Amino acid sequence: MAMMAGSETEKDEDECPYKIESDEVLFRGQWMSGRHVNFLDKASGVRKVWQSAFRSTKQPGVDVDGVDIIATLIRDGGASRHFVFVKQYRIPLNAFCLEFPAGLIDANETVEQAGLRELKEETGYTASRVIALTKGRHGLDPGLTDDTVQFLTVEIDGDLPENQTPTQQLEVGEHVQVVLVPCDSIMQALRDITERGVSVEAMLYSFAIGYSMTH
Amino acid sequence: MAMMAGSETEKDEDECPYKIESDEVLFRGQWMSGRHVNFLDKASGVRKVWQSAFRSTKQPGVDVDGVDIIATLIRDGGASRHFVFVKQYRIPLNAFCLEFPAGLIDANETVEQAGLRELKEETGYTASRVIALTKGRHGLDPGLTDDTVQFLTVEIDGDLPENQTPTQQLEVGEHVQVVLVPCDSIMQALRDITERGVSVEAMLYSFAIGYSMTH
Repeated sequence: MAMMAGSETEKDEDECPYKIESDEVLFRGQWMSGRHVNFLDKASGVRKVWQSAFRSTKQPGVDVDGVDIIATLIRDGGASRHFVFVKQYRIPLNAFCLEFPAGLIDANETVEQAGLRELKEETGYTASRVIALTKGRHGLDPGLTDDTVQFLTVEIDGDLPENQTPTQQLEVGEHVQVVLVPCDSIMQALRDITERGVSVEAMLYSFAIGYSMTH
Repeated sequence: MAMMAGSETEKDEDECPYKIESDEVLFRGQWMSGRHVNFLDKASGVRKVWQSAFRSTKQPGVDVDGVDIIATLIRDGGASRHFVFVKQYRIPLNAFCLEFPAGLIDANETVEQAGLRELKEETGYTASRVIALTKGRHGLDPGLTDDTVQFLTVEIDGDLPENQTPTQQLEVGEHVQVVLVPCDSIMQALRDITERGVSVEAMLYSFAIGYSMTH
């Protein structure tokens, strides 16, 4: 067992426990492809198979696919605080889904630029302050896909003129509804929206659980 | 824009903005399959395509694929508090990944039973108290897959005899390392593990961001 901090020493990262014996594209679609890996478990000598999906649209050399924006809208000089989420119909789930504003990184833009652009396009709001951008590649579903994101945390000053009448900039066929959730009742809001048949994406629900552990 | 709480009224859920014109299995693998949907955007009349992945192992009638366990290990009468995470090599990402303990729901077990079983198998720890189980289907990567989970939040009393020498129960070829992260320095721990080349799954990172907003 590794201890991540404190006085105990961290052992070096293990080497991969598997030997990859073949790695093929099983199927290539316009938007999504399938990958089939045959591998040997070094410890047991057992041979196994792993199948996963990846985006056909992935740019070569790009580290991370997308960015998710964790945005707090502050109004009335701080008296009112809401998280800014979006709701849209998701064909893979056959359901409406409540999510962080998010999008893929375009060519020639940084992750932070992509995050600020997507926030503006999907919600109409202009971020007033960048709090943090995570590093690394955060797997969305690491057992099934190679899809990864980073998180951009921002504040939106809702008292500023540019945030008085937020106007989305959506593409044809894009239908995104902005949903403002009061920070201090986020768990109740997620339970309510779930009751109405909306799927709340996993990384938004776990964010809310972490946030509410002391509320 | 919908307000989730407070005095403003919530409008009824919109109907699906798309008309599904065909829905085919593009490819069926042993573990993962591909789905191809042709749809019409009702508002614009534009025809589009959506491709996504789904688990071939999905049981008919099962609402949710898996369960993720958010576990706090409390020792020394409350003086020591750690989150219990796991690290394993993930072939889809070609990298080690830090994750919540998790697993798929077996036939004939509840989500809560599956969560307690997976926690024991993957970490060796026995939960002492169930705090909460979320409802609904939380999409892991709702633009790309139909894979969904629920969250089981638990406490582990590390002072109890059964949690003195936790012993994992892993299958052949399963290599899972238990990683304990001090609750009060979770963000620094995630930055450190990222520096060492480990991918932190998205729903764990967003949990930490939420948690650290109030700590």
